[in-house]
Order: sequence, then C-alpha cells, then structure tokens
Amino acid sequence: MSNEKVMSILKKRGILYPSFEIYSGVAGFYDYGPLGGLLKNNIMNLWRQYYVFQEGFYEIEAPTVMPRNTLKASGHVDNFTDPMTQCTECNEVYRADHIIEAAINKEVEGLPDEKLTEIIEENNIICPDCEGKLGAVTSYNLMFKTQIGASGKQVGFMRPETAQGIFIAFKRISRFYKDKLPFGIVQLGKSYRNELSPRQGVIRLREFTQAEAEIFVDPSDKSHKNYENITDIELKLYSQKEQINEDEPIIITVNDAIKEGIVSSQMLIYQIVLANNFLSDIGIPQEAIRFRQHLPDEMAHYAIDCWDAEVKTDQYGWVEIIGIADRTDFDLKSHIAHSKEDLSVFKEYDEPVTVTVTKPSFNMKKFGPTFKGDSPKAKEFLENADVNEIKEAFETSGTYSFKIGDNTYEIDDSFVTFETKEEQIKGDRFVPHVIEPSYGIDRIIYSTLLHSYTEDKSEEGETREYLKLPAKIAPIKAAVLPLVNKEELTTIAENIEITLRSNGFITNYETSGTIGKRYARADEIGVPFAITVDYDTVEDNRVTIRNRDTFQQKRVLINQLPVIMRELIEGYKNFEDIAE
Amino acid sequence: MSNEKVMSILKKRGILYPSFEIYSGVAGFYDYGPLGGLLKNNIMNLWRQYYVFQEGFYEIEAPTVMPRNTLKASGHVDNFTDPMTQCTECNEVYRADHIIEAAINKEVEGLPDEKLTEIIEENNIICPDCEGKLGAVTSYNLMFKTQIGASGKQVGFMRPETAQGIFIAFKRISRFYKDKLPFGIVQLGKSYRNELSPRQGVIRLREFTQAEAEIFVDPSDKSHKNYENITDIELKLYSQKEQINEDEPIIITVNDAIKEGIVSSQMLIYQIVLANNFLSDIGIPQEAIRFRQHLPDEMAHYAIDCWDAEVKTDQYGWVEIIGIADRTDFDLKSHIAHSKEDLSVFKEYDEPVTVTVTKPSFNMKKFGPTFKGDSPKAKEFLENADVNEIKEAFETSGTYSFKIGDNTYEIDDSFVTFETKEEQIKGDRFVPHVIEPSYGIDRIIYSTLLHSYTEDKSEEGETREYLKLPAKIAPIKAAVLPLVNKEELTTIAENIEITLRSNGFITNYETSGTIGKRYARADEIGVPFAITVDYDTVEDNRVTIRNRDTFQQKRVLINQLPVIMRELIEGYKNFEDIAE
Repeated sequence: MSNEKVMSILKKRGILYPSFEIYSGVAGFYDYGPLGGLLKNNIMNLWRQYYVFQEGFYEIEAPTVMPRNTLKASGHVDNFTDPMTQCTECNEVYRADHIIEAAINKEVEGLPDEKLTEIIEENNIICPDCEGKLGAVTSYNLMFKTQIGASGKQVGFMRPETAQGIFIAFKRISRFYKDKLPFGIVQLGKSYRNELSPRQGVIRLREFTQAEAEIFVDPSDKSHKNYENITDIELKLYSQKEQINEDEPIIITVNDAIKEGIVSSQMLIYQIVLANNFLSDIGIPQEAIRFRQHLPDEMAHYAIDCWDAEVKTDQYGWVEIIGIADRTDFDLKSHIAHSKEDLSVFKEYDEPVTVTVTKPSFNMKKFGPTFKGDSPKAKEFLENADVNEIKEAFETSGTYSFKIGDNTYEIDDSFVTFETKEEQIKGDRFVPHVIEPSYGIDRIIYSTLLHSYTEDKSEEGETREYLKLPAKIAPIKAAVLPLVNKEELTTIAENIEITLRSNGFITNYETSGTIGKRYARADEIGVPFAITVDYDTVEDNRVTIRNRDTFQQKRVLINQLPVIMRELIEGYKNFEDIAE
Repeated sequence: MSNEKVMSILKKRGILYPSFEIYSGVAGFYDYGPLGGLLKNNIMNLWRQYYVFQEGFYEIEAPTVMPRNTLKASGHVDNFTDPMTQCTECNEVYRADHIIEAAINKEVEGLPDEKLTEIIEENNIICPDCEGKLGAVTSYNLMFKTQIGASGKQVGFMRPETAQGIFIAFKRISRFYKDKLPFGIVQLGKSYRNELSPRQGVIRLREFTQAEAEIFVDPSDKSHKNYENITDIELKLYSQKEQINEDEPIIITVNDAIKEGIVSSQMLIYQIVLANNFLSDIGIPQEAIRFRQHLPDEMAHYAIDCWDAEVKTDQYGWVEIIGIADRTDFDLKSHIAHSKEDLSVFKEYDEPVTVTVTKPSFNMKKFGPTFKGDSPKAKEFLENADVNEIKEAFETSGTYSFKIGDNTYEIDDSFVTFETKEEQIKGDRFVPHVIEPSYGIDRIIYSTLLHSYTEDKSEEGETREYLKLPAKIAPIKAAVLPLVNKEELTTIAENIEITLRSNGFITNYETSGTIGKRYARADEIGVPFAITVDYDTVEDNRVTIRNRDTFQQKRVLINQLPVIMRELIEGYKNFEDIAE
C-alpha cells in the first residue's frame, strides 16, 4: 500500500480529488468524481445489505440542519469542542493540543483549557508562523453555525452526527416498532465538523458521510438472538488490558471474549463481528484490521464499553474507521430532560407478575386538628414517603417524625394504617439503552482504495499498478472492448453494453489503444472484468471475459453475459467455475 | 387525492413527519421515517436507473458547504434572494410579495424592492401580527450562511443547488470524458433554501433533496442520438403561447413540437420525454402531468428555453416538480471569469478543415525610428488588430492610423506586408452549453404518495383507504403473514422472510390480528403483495400471494418466491400471468 501512489491514481482517474480546485480549494473538502460517486454508492448499498436487509433495521432521514435546543440537549453545544489558541500578532488560529505536542512532544489531549494555557506559557511556545505570542486557550465549538430564517432568533447548526436525528424521532420510531425491543434504525448521510485546520486528506474532512445504526435494547437483556451463530468466530481485539500493559492485540473467539468479560455484551460483540465481516467484504485484509477498546479516560463518560475498528495505513498509522459503543440511556434521557417528552417504552412481561404492595390509608379526621394549614402538604408527603421506613419507625419507637417547612410533626399509627395486598403487574416502563455501530464512510472508502492498490506484472510482463477492488463494490463492473474500431465489432460491443447496463451493471466502452493498453487502463481503476469482442464473435456469438486479478480468460455466449456477470459480482461463482 | 388524508397516513404510519417534533418542530424541515427512508431510496435508485444506467451519466458528489467565492461566481450571493419586510414594532419578518398579495390581491412577484416598498406605503399595508408599520423592502439572501474554520475570514454557504458542484469540477469531469461531447454528469443530494417563513408542508422545505443532471453539449449541435426513437411520443405541453392566450395545454407529438419550434432542441425535448416516463413509472397519472414553458419574464436571463414538469395537487394547485432548462454556457462562463481557469473543450473535426489565413509580416527596421519607446506596444497592437481592417485602410487611403496611449501614428504598407496562406485546422475550442433536468425529490415523493392514495372497498366490502404505490418503489415489497401465530407456520414464514430479504426485498412480518386486518394495514402503507402461510403450506410447500390492487390470489411454491417477486416488481410479468 502506498498513500501517495493511490492518491495520484484517484486524482488522475476522477475518483477522489480536492473540492473547489479551480478556486484553489478549501482544506477539509473532497469531491467524489465520476468513478468515486459510483464506488461510494456501492459501498453504502453494501452497508444497507448488512444493516437494512439482513439485520432488518429500517432507514430514516432527518435534516442535517438542526436547531440549537436539540444539540444543547445532546451536549454538543457545550462539549463538541477543540482547544484553540490564537496568535496575538498575526491572528492565526491553532489547535492548542497539536501545537503543544509539536513543540514539546508531550501528549496533552483531554487536558482542560487552563492547563494548556499554562503549558504554553511555561514552555514559551510561540506562533509557528510569525513567532508571536499565543493567546489563552479557549474551547472552539466544532459545529458549523448558521441562522434559520431571518429573524436572528433561531440559531442552527449542521449536525455533528446522524445519530441525534434518530434519538429525537425516537417516539415515532418506537411507535412504528410497537415498542418491541430490540429494534434498530439506521441513517446514512452527511455530518459536519468545522475543523480548525484539517490536514490528513480524506481522513479528516469538514464534511463527511456517516452510516450509523442505533439499536435500542432492554438494559436488563443485552443478549443477541443470533449469538449462537457467531461464538466461534475469531476477532483481533486490542483491549484496555493489552493497551495498558503495552502488549500486542490478542486473537480470541467471540465466546471467550464474552466469557472473560473483555467485551461487555452479546449485543456489542455481535456488532464487532458485523463490522469485521463488512471490512473483509470490501477487501481489507484481516491483518490490517483490529478492534481497539477505548481506554477508561478516552471513553465518553456515559458509555459502558466502546470499541473502534481500526485499519492500518502507511501514512496515518492505525486509523479509526468504525466506532461501536454502548451509549446506554444517556441520549434518550438527555432528550427527555430537555424536551419534557416521555421517551420510555413499556415492555410487557411474558406473564403478568404478582407483587405484594403495601399502601397507606389515612385517618383524615386527625389531620386537620394536628397539621392545620400544613394538612394537604402532610398528606402529600406521607403518600410519597417510604412505606417501610414509616412502618419501621412505628415498630421501633411507636412514632414517626417529619418536617413540613419549618414545622416538625410526630405521628403514631392512629394517623395512618397500612394495607397489604397482591397486585398484578403486566410489564415494566423504562428508557432503552443504545448500541451504536458508527461507520465513517469516507475513511472506509479510503481504506478500501489503499488496500486494493497492487503492484505486479501484466500479461505482457510489464509493471502494472492497479486497484484490486472486490467486484461487488468496483465502480465499473466490466470494460467492453471491441478488438478493433470497426463497425462489425463495435455494433456488437455497443449492444452488449446496453444489455449489461439495463441489467444494472455499469460498463465502460473503450475503443482506443491496443487491447493491452485498454486492459491496463481498466485495471488501474479496478474494473474486475474485461469483455472483448473479436472477429470470431461475429461467427460464434461468443466473447472473451478476462479476469483482472488472474488474467484467466473464458469464452462465453453473449446472451449468457448478464447471468455470468451476476454470478461473478454477487460472488455465487468463482471465475474458474464459469462454464465455457 | 386528498392532501389531508394522505398526510395523516404518512404521519401515523411513520413515512413522513415534521422534524424535531418533541422540541415543537421548526418550519420547513421534515423527517423521512422508517418507511419514508426506504421509499426515498427506491425513488432515487429508480432515478439512477434512468440517468446513470440507461443514459450513461456518471454520478459525482461534491460538498454541500461551499466557500463564498464559488457562489459569488454563480450569481447566488447577489441574486438568490427574496424581498423581505420587517415590522418596525414587533420585528417579525415577512416576504414582501406574499404580504402584498395577501393584502391587496395583486400579483407582484419579480418587482424591484423599491417598487414593493412603494406599494406597501401606498396601500397602508401593516403587520398582520401586531398591526405595526412595515419597514422598507430589502433583498434577503436565501442561503444558509456559515463560517469555515475559526479565523472568521472564510465565509461559506450551504449550497442552493447541486448543479454548481458539477460546474466547478467541470475541468476534471471533462478530462474524464476525454472532452467528448455530449456527456452528462449527475448529482443527487441535499440543497438548502433558508425560506423566511416556509408553509406548504413538504412542497417548500428549507432542506431538500435534488437529483440533477448537467448534460454538456456542443452549442452548434443540440441533436440527440436517440431522437428517432421518441418522435411519435405525445406530450402535454403548456407553451408560452397557450399561457399568454389563456388557452389550455396542447397534446402534441415530439416531432411536431420540434418542427413547430415549440421546444428549442432535440436535447431538451428528449429530457422532457424522460421526465414524463419517470413520472409515469412512479404512478403519476398522465392527466395530472403537464409541461409548462417558462414565460419570457420568468425565465432566467441566461436560459434559452425552460420547461417545468408540473403535477396537479388538490392542496397547492399545479406544482413544479422538475425543471428542464437549457442553461447555455452561462454557468461555465461565469466560473471562467471568476476562477480564471480555462473551462473550454477542444472538439476535433471529423476531417481537418483548410482555411485561408492572412498574417502580417513587420518591417522592424522602420519601427524604432517611428514609434521610439512605443515600439513594442505598436507591434503588439498591430499583431492583434484586425488584418482586414488594416488592408482595407491601405487600399482606400494608403495609410492606417492608430493610437498608443496619447500618441497617434500613421503607417503605410512599408511597415507591414501581408502573407496569405492555407492552414489546416483540426478542431474548434469552445465553452459547452448545458441542458439540465433538475428533479425535486421531496416534491416528487409527495406527488407519488398523493396520487397513489385510493379509496375503495376491501374483499370484505369494507371501506379501504390505501396507497396504490407501484411495486417498484413501494418501501415494503411483501407482507409475510402466518395465518395463525403457531410455530409450525411461523417457522416457515420466518424463513420466507429471511430468503426474500437476502434477495433484496424488504418484507414485513406480521402475526397479530385477523388476516383481513393485516391485509388492511399492509394496503395502507402500499405493500403490493401479501404472502400467507397456512396449514396447507406445511403439506404442499405452497403459499398464497395476494395482489393488493385486485385481490387476486395465486398459490405458488415457496422456492419460486424470489423469482416471482422479481418478475412482479421489475414488471416483467403481470400478476395474472404468474403460473400456479
């Protein structure tokens, strides 16, 4: 793999390039070009195959512009920040932690602003541009801010994650699922992060695409119905323990990881397995994948357990591309608190449960004379007091004392008696927990391109550099190549193209250059199959299919092409098993 | 059709509902719920079937956040505005044209701000809220504004249309297509319009989805290669003439519309035909579709010809849902002017053309003595001057006069002689024109839902209200229903569901309620087919498929279901032709 070589192909061949180039560009924005757009669609649709079709999670789409109160509730208005320092001379702004790390090579991520300011002062760290004095460190909010409407009263932000749109619509979603936990909802779309000074190409974008699933579960039951099917699967886990001990990641079965308490729940490890399968499907080799557990100090304070799928890169080291977290009930509870809406679900027990309940019964005649104006408050207090505490007080001392405002009262069992009876309870009302796999689509695309880059020799023994993209996600599925640019061949080739396209395969029709050159150009952009029309085709209605990776060729009937292409691309058949 | 009834189903069944409901919502934002998200994907993928797979246009994805200079170039910073007036007492803001139209029932769209201010004053139009005086009308820019980065130097906007992302990347796109016109590029994604006070539900959103194709063509050749295939197709056109004469739209063949000059080019009418087919495919009846030509005063000043596909609604009248325009070279030329980049293409002639060119040859010895310090400028001037003009001047008066700065010079043919020779020209360099079909996806979804709403009687003679969505776009393709909730049936039904989902069909598994009630619930959300597992299924491996629209039932083998479903949904077979 080679970041530089891959980026050069991506730019040259119209896959991925910096946005607004003719206006000198803006850091943190990339365009998916003609081939990149197709690749991205294919990867997002593969994701849907996993989460929507297989897992049965429905997909919603909420707005990317969100009003301030929703993101105040989620915590982003207050906490979605980076520490910033500004040069007092040239006014350039910097990420305080980055500038400190660069200057004194010390890990300072997560320290409070005041501490960072101190470190800058103590170490005389200055503006790298103009050598001016750096100002005090402040928290810079990473959301793009805007106004909704013209009144100036409604502040809005571009969403920092797709997840919040799901939590905010939880009431309708839960109704759709008839409150039957567990259920999942996904959202794919743009999210935004107004970085101070993004570097790292497509790894750190200001506008990026997420695919997130929020799986709502019963907090008392995080088992997974398909757990038995995954217990023997091996995962490369880099748990807190190995990180703290500076050991290597371990390879462990799902079953052992759960039994040893390394991963906190079946629900969570099931998502790790799905992520691993997905990454494998898009061509990332197992040795370049690991799942790293968040360390206690890096985990969000509300999360129980959190794992990142990381992919190895030559340029940026191990890069987080998927986050898998148990977010507990934090988000829903925050929205309950801010919106005052009930976002709990009612879970019916299989069988109603019989419980013994003790309820107070008041002798109201004694209340007026004793409590006077405090009577209603005394009743309210006693109704809500702990029944057992009162009973115990009566039993031990004969009286129970309590205060209403400044007045202390003492009562005995002539004020209140207790009735114990059996009641049937049909179910339980609670706020669900959330398991969240969150995929960074742009980083995934970068990873798959990086790891698909291959150098070897062509049929003709020439050096070849190409993208070994899995057929399933390759933007163009077949190159259609008339051997020479003569009408008797081009007419056949054009018809093949029309047929394949109407069957849902994007093809690339090329007539110029030798067949060898055309193969090379197709290989470079990851086209898995080349279909060549030659003079024999005119006689026998057969064409040659060439396999990009093995150079193997098969001669097949034209009218079999749609079926063969489907078998090859969906992976039902290997190339060597195609009948000639 | 009934806006009210449809909106109620959409909300109740989780298809489409106002965003941020638990925070009392924000006007102009809607969520696509669990079924709406699927419906939207299906409609966007159908669109791709037309434009990407059939027409062969590649898809790109450019950012939604754009820096100011790009939108200054496109004209949006200056012209993407609505007239606004603000109440001087309560500070509420209004669209000036709307408030005038409501107050004095006069069409004032498009009038300049000063004129609108005058009308408000002359007619004493006051704030509808507080009866306060309304302020002078100003232009309110409809783009959501933001800052990129923290420096405060980089203003950005949320894009008002997807098209600009294509124009800005034109250089790379044209290179991808090797400059071979015509070529098309599409983009699907969010666009933004920060309306003052959006009403009209999903018809006027502040955040909406567009699907746009930009087809770059040779200005001297707007013919379409497939024109012969569409000449006999009939369209309902509401041209400028009929609108001005207050006549009805006409039904006319493509051929006649072109011959009579009603539509300006083959390229443009081909797009009208595609739009008509698309709308038909998503279930909009022909009588509810018309193509209305923009009147001269409503057309963008740069457009040659522009047609809107309009759909009839009960609530909002005829609504524009697709715009089809010949944008000429306006956009590319604006970006050339602002970016100083060359966005022209070179078109090679089929055969090189031989032309006679006359070139000046200078007698440099005479330049120094005559022009002195102006010598280099004089040479530059003469090189770029019109050769024929100079020759003509020599012929008529023997001399030619010109100015360099304040100095006037006179020369005769001793200074310059002319050489005439033949040159071969291989091609032409020019800025392409753009044909643009622009689809408003949210309005299209609303239209298809509105027109799919049907009231009739169920099998049991009960009133039924349902969405007659075409199978191709229905969010759920089949309801899988075990006749009773017993394990011997539910196991079979669950397996059917898994099989269908893994074949790419979203299904809905339902066990509760009578079969009649379950059919009704499925009909309501437009599920085209219901598959019932009954006691006979256990014996014969057959299930009953019911057709939502006709109640017709077929009994088919379980293992045939994937094939049958594909035939029905892709439209290869009608329900009555399914073999039992």
